[in-house]
Amino acid sequence: SRNIRLAVIPGDGIGTEVVAEGLKVLEAVGTKIDATHYDLGAARYHRTGETLPDAVLEELRGYDAILLGAVGDPSVPPGVLERDLLLKIRFAFDHYVNLRPVKLFPGVETPLADTPVENIDMIVVREGTEGLYAGTGGVMRRGTPYEIATQESLNTAHGVERVVRYAFEKARSRPRKKLTLVHKTNVLTYAGDLWQRTVDRVAEEYSDVTTDYSHIDAASMFFVSQPERFDVVVTDNLFGDIITDLGAAIAGGIGLAASGNINPEGTAPSMFEPVHGSAPDIAGQGKADPTATILSVAMMLDHLGLSAEAAKVEQAVADDIVERLTGWSSRTTREIGDDITERVSS
Amino acid sequence: SRNIRLAVIPGDGIGTEVVAEGLKVLEAVGTKIDATHYDLGAARYHRTGETLPDAVLEELRGYDAILLGAVGDPSVPPGVLERDLLLKIRFAFDHYVNLRPVKLFPGVETPLADTPVENIDMIVVREGTEGLYAGTGGVMRRGTPYEIATQESLNTAHGVERVVRYAFEKARSRPRKKLTLVHKTNVLTYAGDLWQRTVDRVAEEYSDVTTDYSHIDAASMFFVSQPERFDVVVTDNLFGDIITDLGAAIAGGIGLAASGNINPEGTAPSMFEPVHGSAPDIAGQGKADPTATILSVAMMLDHLGLSAEAAKVEQAVADDIVERLTGWSSRTTREIGDDITERVSS
Ligand SMILES: CC(C)[C@H](C(=O)O)[C@@H](O)C(=O)O
Ligand SMILES: CC(C)[C@H](C(=O)O)[C@@H](O)C(=O)O
Repeated sequence: SRNIRLAVIPGDGIGTEVVAEGLKVLEAVGTKIDATHYDLGAARYHRTGETLPDAVLEELRGYDAILLGAVGDPSVPPGVLERDLLLKIRFAFDHYVNLRPVKLFPGVETPLADTPVENIDMIVVREGTEGLYAGTGGVMRRGTPYEIATQESLNTAHGVERVVRYAFEKARSRPRKKLTLVHKTNVLTYAGDLWQRTVDRVAEEYSDVTTDYSHIDAASMFFVSQPERFDVVVTDNLFGDIITDLGAAIAGGIGLAASGNINPEGTAPSMFEPVHGSAPDIAGQGKADPTATILSVAMMLDHLGLSAEAAKVEQAVADDIVERLTGWSSRTTREIGDDITERVSS
Repeated sequence: SRNIRLAVIPGDGIGTEVVAEGLKVLEAVGTKIDATHYDLGAARYHRTGETLPDAVLEELRGYDAILLGAVGDPSVPPGVLERDLLLKIRFAFDHYVNLRPVKLFPGVETPLADTPVENIDMIVVREGTEGLYAGTGGVMRRGTPYEIATQESLNTAHGVERVVRYAFEKARSRPRKKLTLVHKTNVLTYAGDLWQRTVDRVAEEYSDVTTDYSHIDAASMFFVSQPERFDVVVTDNLFGDIITDLGAAIAGGIGLAASGNINPEGTAPSMFEPVHGSAPDIAGQGKADPTATILSVAMMLDHLGLSAEAAKVEQAVADDIVERLTGWSSRTTREIGDDITERVSS
């Protein structure tokens, strides 16, 4: 079989550190990879003023997948790298499924007291291409007492239905077969109505799946008090952003949370990245946990049809985590990467 | 001194049950009250089609304060009672400060493991009159594959500055003097820019207050993993809605979370209500905890300048909570109300 053509965007801050470990594991698991690095991020922006030139975007389109570390740096105005690099890729490549498992690995300490490991095992299907992330809105009379700033949430039948269908398929494939819509239908009545009607309509084709609804405020509470309520969660872009960080927290921390920005039809490459950000405060110190990136690599392998390799990486991570219990948890980024690499190679 | 003129809106579901206990405590603490009940909510809506007639709204304006239970019922389309009753009052009476303490009472079990009681002690200042709650937006081609549904977040310099100033004053009055802005400036760039600039500008007048910033996703994580990061939080209407339910969860549950919808200038009555909703699933069963309403009554007394009475109610609740440790936690709504009433009367 031909090599996997992979575009690698380490990005900013700890992004470069964790991606290096992800690639190490990827090589060790025995996949044939042609990896090309792209120096997109804060440094290039400062050097050239470029975030993601259209020519580079078109080049990225030719790869089988993209592995991304993290983007964002305090030296760049908020939103510039996020919007013109990260979100630009998600939107251009129609990553309408942002897949984020929230699963407690045995051996990981959850901050929730008395929560059995099996109670935290869900998958959040976050919409990735519309809602408030559309970026529309504007400002008038900026800097005056009469300033008004707006943001728009754009939701389409097309955009909502395809992600809802994906979520129903996911729910069907899992033992509990339960799908919870998370929204705020009692306040965001126009968008909420579209989401709720879509779920209700598609549900008719999935009589084996139980559906449920939770307002985003109540869901945030339930993530902490009753995480076992959730199996598959489907939600919009912003609610999904919030609830998956919360999910990472209850599942043992942002150092373990993986994600995939998926284009299910394969009309463009999917992109895999840890849920965490560039963490400039700890960058360059070897303190970042590369596990989230390594688990994102496993998601990527699975997406590319290499399920045996994906399982091997996941198992190596699970074993590594159990080892942490025995004490040596103060490893550097590279040491954790080395330990997991050793497990997948053996 | 003249009697306090109080408008009471028990509302739907458990709203009526918890409000009855709140009033009992209010009488017992020795305040002179003239209470007038308003039967607004689902029942009246079904009977008359009315949510909140303008004449009633104008009548409410004449009171010193409003005590509200909860509104919302599954028999009414989502948003009707919320928007045309609850939010109508918040907007009409310019309740631009939605004040929500997140404080762990000694004796209350938090779902967070190993969290000392003093680590959860913050106050969220949620904006109450704009943002996505403005309700603007719309729908086109409803029910077709070409449907588009929008929601708009409206943010004004006027609206943001006044709540930010209130939050700075709050922060100044507390020992830690720390204010954290929670937003999503890297995606909601127009609104985020207005909020961040406003905080930065007002901060110059408050050199004794430390300011900090957290994205809403990271803040949700920190509420669980490091709640001690927060002292006073200022945020917009929707983020505040989400984070205060999460706050209620970490501080021992929605049964204890109080709130005040404040008009700081007193140009209209402020309104006090538990953070929880109408909980139709347990309504009429005497299962609801009235403590959140009783603590909202304490906030109301404080707001009306009756700080000794407020302190008495709070102390009674604190003592009642400590008693729960000794076992009799399966009391009915009325029993909890009676026990707290007895403490304030003695
Ligand atoms: C960096 C930011 C734009 C991004 C988002 O909000 O989607 C991040 O928080 C995430 O969850 O991947
Ligand atoms: C009932 C609903 C409209 C309300 C809100 O979203 O503000 C509630 O959740 C709250 O927090 O008071």
